[in-house]
Amino acid sequence: MTGVNREIHLASRPDGWPTGENFRLVETEMPKPGPGQLLVRNQYMSVDPYMRGRMNDVKSYVPPFRLDAPLDGGVVGEVVASEADGFAPGDVVLHGLGWREYALVDAGSARIVDPGLAPVTAYLSVLGMTGLTAYAGLLEVAGMRPGETVFVSAAAGAVGSLVGQIATLKGAARVVGSAGSAAKVERLTALGFDAAFDYHDGPVRHALKAAAPDGIDVYFDNVGGDHLEAAISALRPHGRVAICGMIAHYNAAEPPAAPRNLALLIGKRLTLRGFLVGDHGHLRDEFVREMSGWLREGRVSYDETIVDGIENAPAAFLGLLRGENLGKMLVRL
Amino acid sequence: MTGVNREIHLASRPDGWPTGENFRLVETEMPKPGPGQLLVRNQYMSVDPYMRGRMNDVKSYVPPFRLDAPLDGGVVGEVVASEADGFAPGDVVLHGLGWREYALVDAGSARIVDPGLAPVTAYLSVLGMTGLTAYAGLLEVAGMRPGETVFVSAAAGAVGSLVGQIATLKGAARVVGSAGSAAKVERLTALGFDAAFDYHDGPVRHALKAAAPDGIDVYFDNVGGDHLEAAISALRPHGRVAICGMIAHYNAAEPPAAPRNLALLIGKRLTLRGFLVGDHGHLRDEFVREMSGWLREGRVSYDETIVDGIENAPAAFLGLLRGENLGKMLVRL
Repeated sequence: MTGVNREIHLASRPDGWPTGENFRLVETEMPKPGPGQLLVRNQYMSVDPYMRGRMNDVKSYVPPFRLDAPLDGGVVGEVVASEADGFAPGDVVLHGLGWREYALVDAGSARIVDPGLAPVTAYLSVLGMTGLTAYAGLLEVAGMRPGETVFVSAAAGAVGSLVGQIATLKGAARVVGSAGSAAKVERLTALGFDAAFDYHDGPVRHALKAAAPDGIDVYFDNVGGDHLEAAISALRPHGRVAICGMIAHYNAAEPPAAPRNLALLIGKRLTLRGFLVGDHGHLRDEFVREMSGWLREGRVSYDETIVDGIENAPAAFLGLLRGENLGKMLVRL
Repeated sequence: MTGVNREIHLASRPDGWPTGENFRLVETEMPKPGPGQLLVRNQYMSVDPYMRGRMNDVKSYVPPFRLDAPLDGGVVGEVVASEADGFAPGDVVLHGLGWREYALVDAGSARIVDPGLAPVTAYLSVLGMTGLTAYAGLLEVAGMRPGETVFVSAAAGAVGSLVGQIATLKGAARVVGSAGSAAKVERLTALGFDAAFDYHDGPVRHALKAAAPDGIDVYFDNVGGDHLEAAISALRPHGRVAICGMIAHYNAAEPPAAPRNLALLIGKRLTLRGFLVGDHGHLRDEFVREMSGWLREGRVSYDETIVDGIENAPAAFLGLLRGENLGKMLVRL
């Protein structure tokens, strides 16, 4: 394999909202696999909100992206050359070196997926980390039980839309979602949410009160800020919050001051718990079995927003942060 | 029994910090026990931070105090007349009708305590709800394990001083406390805290960093605000916060905006959990057994600050809110 490879580098660290200037498209030489390595032609790459955190130079649960080096993240692609046992050209693999057209992957970091069982993009979304995040956060971290009322923010996003559907399938009495446009609210209703609102239409606490007048038991947080404050006010005794993300905080120069009502945690005996999907790998088999069944039976739907071309990957990521996606945001390479 | 009874009524609801004006000393007729009732001469009554919340007219886990009616709260006293089986004059009982010199108590709400086993005040503090709050919050809510580092705020208070001592007895590697004066800090060191600081001496986050340079695993929160924010920054992965109180919030006209770093809950997988001791009654027997043993062996010390006279009960309560107590604040009636 010869020719030119293209990849996206981090050109500078964003201060607040990122812009196109923070990224650089770089042409590099086509890599050659050494022993135990694969050369993969990447087909679909994931852009995710958590990547914003990695653009800052701070210690966190994953190391920050390096300047003048390619970004990385979840991706599926086709093996074009293999120097590793168990992998052959034509295999479709899931691995972690996105943000580039071709990737040199250690075989131990790649997992073969079956494009006959599900579209390859599903391994990045509904059947992959995205789906497991929704499943583990709702059922294990928040411990949702049948008969409870569940609220999820960024509900038209990849994780949020699955949280709402899983909640209903697992017996929630009422599922409420918030989203950022009328079209998204309409989509949530179509997905089976019992109530949904556009958070631009007024204070979240008012909208949530109207959507769940008797309160909520579980809040799946993707947003933070005023959403979290409103949820804390709406939670019933012994309510739980699974904190998956706080997208309202990621680009704020000053972190949002809310929630100001944390003292309610005491009297209502509330639990707030942050989580990372990586701690919940023990649920993967159960999750894949259940989710595959729901997909087969047509009981779960998932949306994808697909942007074409590696040169547009930064724009796809910026669009994700602005909420321009419905469901999973992917880049086709 | 004839004569005059005296009790403290709530004269008006405080707006921000309460003052003496919010209370009224009222003389009433001496009550007479009916069937199933006791007349109790109250000896020691407890004043507790949670009572501040009950002075607001808001729905909470306990109903608000009524205006122009006596306050209530934990108290021990001697039965002077009994119309109930199992109770006789001379019995010392623990019950919930404090803030008055004599109380008419339903026998079902009173529990006989043994003044031979421990001073009667201990049943309001180290062996009572105060002690169980420390024990349950540290061990069950925060799930402290041997070898962990524990931070507790308001550590010279009734609950905090026991949290620190129980942590050490249960194998904590390091116990750090914050308090509001140099004398209290000195007392914490005498009680066996590994480090202690006066939160007036500078930002809590700096003091905590110096006292626990490798971070903390458990924070027992009595304060909220900047203490909670500093603890979230200092917590190590999978750290837990037991939220017992937020005294910094109770009298604030505007609730403190902190913590502004809640997004750290995600990457560090932190848990914040509010609790009420009433949910942990199943630990009472185990707690009393362990705590009695520690007291017998001289391994736990507890402080009491005692104010004399029902007319000074409001001042005792206000002093508690300002942190004028060392250990348990009690009023001798």
